[in-house]
Amino acid sequence: MIIYVEEKANPKQLEILKEWLNDIGVEVHSLASEKGTILGLLGETQNVDVDLVQGLDIVKKVVKVKEPYKSSNRKFHPEDTVIQIGNAKVGGGNFAAIAGPCSVESTEQICNIAKAVKAAGASMLRGGAFKPRTSPYSFQGLRSKGIELLLYAKQMTGMPIVSEIMDIGNIDVFEHVDVIQIGARNMQNFELLKEIGRTDKVILLKRGLANTLKEFLMSAEYIMASGNENVILCERGIRTFETATRNTLDVSAIPLLKQMSHLPVIVDPSHASGIAGLVRPLALAAVAAGADGIMVEVHNDPEHALCDGPQSIKPEAFKSLMEDILKVRGVLF
Amino acid sequence: MIIYVEEKANPKQLEILKEWLNDIGVEVHSLASEKGTILGLLGETQNVDVDLVQGLDIVKKVVKVKEPYKSSNRKFHPEDTVIQIGNAKVGGGNFAAIAGPCSVESTEQICNIAKAVKAAGASMLRGGAFKPRTSPYSFQGLRSKGIELLLYAKQMTGMPIVSEIMDIGNIDVFEHVDVIQIGARNMQNFELLKEIGRTDKVILLKRGLANTLKEFLMSAEYIMASGNENVILCERGIRTFETATRNTLDVSAIPLLKQMSHLPVIVDPSHASGIAGLVRPLALAAVAAGADGIMVEVHNDPEHALCDGPQSIKPEAFKSLMEDILKVRGVLF
Amino acid sequence: MIIYVEEKANPKQLEILKEWLNDIGVEVHSLASEKGTILGLLGETQNVDVDLVQGLDIVKKVVKVKEPYKSSNRKFHPEDTVIQIGNAKVGGGNFAAIAGPCSVESTEQICNIAKAVKAAGASMLRGGAFKPRTSPYSFQGLRSKGIELLLYAKQMTGMPIVSEIMDIGNIDVFEHVDVIQIGARNMQNFELLKEIGRTDKVILLKRGLANTLKEFLMSAEYIMASGNENVILCERGIRTFETATRNTLDVSAIPLLKQMSHLPVIVDPSHASGIAGLVRPLALAAVAAGADGIMVEVHNDPEHALCDGPQSIKPEAFKSLMEDILKVRGVLF
Amino acid sequence: MIIYVEEKANPKQLEILKEWLNDIGVEVHSLASEKGTILGLLGETQNVDVDLVQGLDIVKKVVKVKEPYKSSNRKFHPEDTVIQIGNAKVGGGNFAAIAGPCSVESTEQICNIAKAVKAAGASMLRGGAFKPRTSPYSFQGLRSKGIELLLYAKQMTGMPIVSEIMDIGNIDVFEHVDVIQIGARNMQNFELLKEIGRTDKVILLKRGLANTLKEFLMSAEYIMASGNENVILCERGIRTFETATRNTLDVSAIPLLKQMSHLPVIVDPSHASGIAGLVRPLALAAVAAGADGIMVEVHNDPEHALCDGPQSIKPEAFKSLMEDILKVRGVLF
Repeated sequence: MIIYVEEKANPKQLEILKEWLNDIGVEVHSLASEKGTILGLLGETQNVDVDLVQGLDIVKKVVKVKEPYKSSNRKFHPEDTVIQIGNAKVGGGNFAAIAGPCSVESTEQICNIAKAVKAAGASMLRGGAFKPRTSPYSFQGLRSKGIELLLYAKQMTGMPIVSEIMDIGNIDVFEHVDVIQIGARNMQNFELLKEIGRTDKVILLKRGLANTLKEFLMSAEYIMASGNENVILCERGIRTFETATRNTLDVSAIPLLKQMSHLPVIVDPSHASGIAGLVRPLALAAVAAGADGIMVEVHNDPEHALCDGPQSIKPEAFKSLMEDILKVRGVLF
Repeated sequence: MIIYVEEKANPKQLEILKEWLNDIGVEVHSLASEKGTILGLLGETQNVDVDLVQGLDIVKKVVKVKEPYKSSNRKFHPEDTVIQIGNAKVGGGNFAAIAGPCSVESTEQICNIAKAVKAAGASMLRGGAFKPRTSPYSFQGLRSKGIELLLYAKQMTGMPIVSEIMDIGNIDVFEHVDVIQIGARNMQNFELLKEIGRTDKVILLKRGLANTLKEFLMSAEYIMASGNENVILCERGIRTFETATRNTLDVSAIPLLKQMSHLPVIVDPSHASGIAGLVRPLALAAVAAGADGIMVEVHNDPEHALCDGPQSIKPEAFKSLMEDILKVRGVLF
Repeated sequence: MIIYVEEKANPKQLEILKEWLNDIGVEVHSLASEKGTILGLLGETQNVDVDLVQGLDIVKKVVKVKEPYKSSNRKFHPEDTVIQIGNAKVGGGNFAAIAGPCSVESTEQICNIAKAVKAAGASMLRGGAFKPRTSPYSFQGLRSKGIELLLYAKQMTGMPIVSEIMDIGNIDVFEHVDVIQIGARNMQNFELLKEIGRTDKVILLKRGLANTLKEFLMSAEYIMASGNENVILCERGIRTFETATRNTLDVSAIPLLKQMSHLPVIVDPSHASGIAGLVRPLALAAVAAGADGIMVEVHNDPEHALCDGPQSIKPEAFKSLMEDILKVRGVLF
Repeated sequence: MIIYVEEKANPKQLEILKEWLNDIGVEVHSLASEKGTILGLLGETQNVDVDLVQGLDIVKKVVKVKEPYKSSNRKFHPEDTVIQIGNAKVGGGNFAAIAGPCSVESTEQICNIAKAVKAAGASMLRGGAFKPRTSPYSFQGLRSKGIELLLYAKQMTGMPIVSEIMDIGNIDVFEHVDVIQIGARNMQNFELLKEIGRTDKVILLKRGLANTLKEFLMSAEYIMASGNENVILCERGIRTFETATRNTLDVSAIPLLKQMSHLPVIVDPSHASGIAGLVRPLALAAVAAGADGIMVEVHNDPEHALCDGPQSIKPEAFKSLMEDILKVRGVLF
């Protein structure tokens, strides 16, 4: 880390700054010139609160040399992380196809979809039991009952299951859930991240609606710093001025995250667009850009389509998509 | 609510839709023309999941007539809500000035600042004990100890105190805290909102970094639907492409929120900009636009300025700001 | 178009509104109910200035039924438009690969790159002569001289050429340029759009940094309304809060634009990211999402790499990319 | 400027870089260490294309020390610029109130409004003659005829007039117009900026919908570099995810621009929000934040309100606003 000191800095304040840096374990190398002083910092520079230093009157600019994320950083872990979930693997060349309904509704519904997506090539089953809804008056999910139904579908099909947790108080209910999802709205619910990091579950962490890739990795870092390194990153669209889609899929995030980190990166084309007709092109785009997997909403039989979200596709469309994904991966990877 | 049905809609699907609407308590009036059918909905239209209906193949467009927020809606509660907190009041013409340090650090620090901001005209004391930090390696606050120090400062100065909660598990620690803050990153932590809504505390709810005003009011609605109507809304800057400021203060949010809702609206100019030099102009702008209060970071004596954020101002600057705020309010309101 | 009139509308004002609508060629059907009056408009509704009507005190809401873009609208022209440029075709299943340097610098440079990209499979040559630069102190391009060099390269290789115009005053210089580019910063330079629409050139219109897809099509509409229907749309990244890339490629724009319009849609992965290492994954993503072509910056031989932008790739990388694009198109389309 | 060279940089490439820097007039000071080489640049560093250097394989990071804007930079011109326009002044403590209709429609309309806004305290008259419209099918303004009507109103009231130019080809028509406006959509129409910079007119430059403050000043720089230093900056709202307002007024831009530059800064609350009811609170906020003026849309008598935009206020509302602005300025400045 390098600190550029203002030309007219008060020498006394500069001394206080240097002492404070020493106190927090940082070695300070001072280079004075007529253009002002430059401080080169070595040692435990992660202790330095950059915003704080940047804000001092005597400081012109702080330049960081190291990334603030460590456990998730590819520099310190050049090999791809491969995560095993039951018979499924994700990362390091292994592609994961996670599919299922927006919400778990009934035994029949979840079992029918589970069978259909398994036959179409899905490796894991998703389903919402605890639902984050903008309105307190909207359906909040079947909650614990929904997890029970998912476990039943797991038993029946042998597929590992993925479901979202919203409060660590419910962790007991997730005992047999294979992958616990942290939703976009909780990406910076730091207390939840810390707690979930103390479990040994696989965590699927979704990017927040307005969070940078660095913040995304810092949230993964919260989980990993608590001891749990089984983190899958999921790009699901960011909020922009464009209103034609619910969110804007940031397809560049895929190759960038894979450069920055060794963790697997998957994409959710259903929430990224909010439009069923875009699931296929966006999923194929994600695959071509190097995603390690997709998570797709697939709905029940058409007669009951009323109860599925506008972003869900039918099992046949998912089957056709999976075939094309395999073809694209066949020629590219 | 009005549903425009596609011209070539399958009549059977249309029947299913109508039945489903009836089932959830909605009266359906059908108007057929050569341009397609229009359904006019009356009754319990809040049961209709608009996204869901919008997504149906047979639906062209859904137009909502009513706002989805009820408890916070000014239409159903035309008078300004006035919230009493100790001797302080906010809303309905009462201006609240909340000031204090970014983080509580020591007895001496919090007491000195508390005395200084009280003398300058603050009506409440703020201080961070549980700190949401992007990095798990950054200082996370003094936590329970920080609340203790705040309570000591409250006892000493008689000022009500404001502090942020991050996990409902810590609610006991906040027993004597007057105003509990829900931070921007938790604005859509719906489980926390529900739980905090079951307390009788005054809640200061901050707008999320990328949340619309409607979503903001829906989050207030979560708290109010759980029974707690003591909610103060706080605009604190939104995330945009501009990088000159940490966030972009959405000053239009003040008059708009006051039109939409009867709840008090305050502004945090410190976090909105992240720049101490902008606190004064932004606070004055907020006051001129009709804000019911401000929340400002004020730091300790200059000798220890090292430990304060880049967005904190000195007590003298706060004093001068308060004088100008009173002058502006004097000529405008 | 449907106008919802306020319940307490002044009847006199309502009469003035109806008369005014009649005067501009719109037939008004009035439906009064206890909930207020609804006006159904037929006829020349494109004459109605929606913002204006929306702003009237007596109007609650205006709902448009028709899209405001006509010439570019797929509804009125279901077949894909195919544009022929020399031997190259774009649209309707024909893929265009446009490649070349950021700026034309010298005869040697442009000819070397032209030969290299032709050998690699490019169908057209791009090169900047008139350069839009944020700073007046930056290199502004070789201007007319640059076009001359491009024409020389065209003669030598037989490839059609693409270059950006910034001012209609230079149109004579572009007489033999095959495709004239309108840059992102000029997407809403309506006078330029009108003028260029009076030529018979093929126009490559880039999406503005903060423009919606509807606004993008309205700008195409300006060109087409002036008589020129040879418009190619180019998605090149939009401005968002994310700073890891220069812009955020909106990959969803590809399938959406192709649904909304019959015009060919190409993608510029070089400007979308500003990072050479992302050109390949983004180009492949665009192809998988259905793009009709790509426009890529390719730089000169590595010894002179100094003069190329950070987003340019080498000819070999372009060659390898083209091979993979053909493979992906082979399995998907 | 400082260039951080990659640790494993090819020495030959480094030599090429240094030679190239020397060639463009830059003095290079090389500092080698075990952590890599740092190049300190002196001299004509404005010749260095930072993006280009940043993109080189051998370069890790480029840090700029100087701002790229010079003529508009307050550092080199610490005094506020004061611009005299007829009897009106703007900047350096002089407040300008520009008011008038969205579009000039008729002699009667413009004269009535001109008299009304003059009586209410406006110092200049605005009116659109050449109108930038998203749709080619919308009313494009009275064009030259509109300017004639404005000039008539100027003659009658003695007020200087402000109107937008869209194409330099029309400059003759603006011969007697006092202030020429460059609209938001043309903020980066660099050819227009250069041309307008060759005139001696006062230029009112509006910020683009998605342009940073730095880019805004760079566009002012284009005008000033062509010789015309009479530039007024106008903040008019930026594009964000929020849809409750047409744009989001960036009130922080006011104090920031005034820190960065010596040019006058005014605000357009009408276009910033697109909502008449927000004009007053936003104008007052802008004044409190230190704006040197406002530009407000004021419409004709209510009987003809049909022809005014949703963001226009009535003359009486403008009069009341002006009174309050004077009061706020009275207590603050």
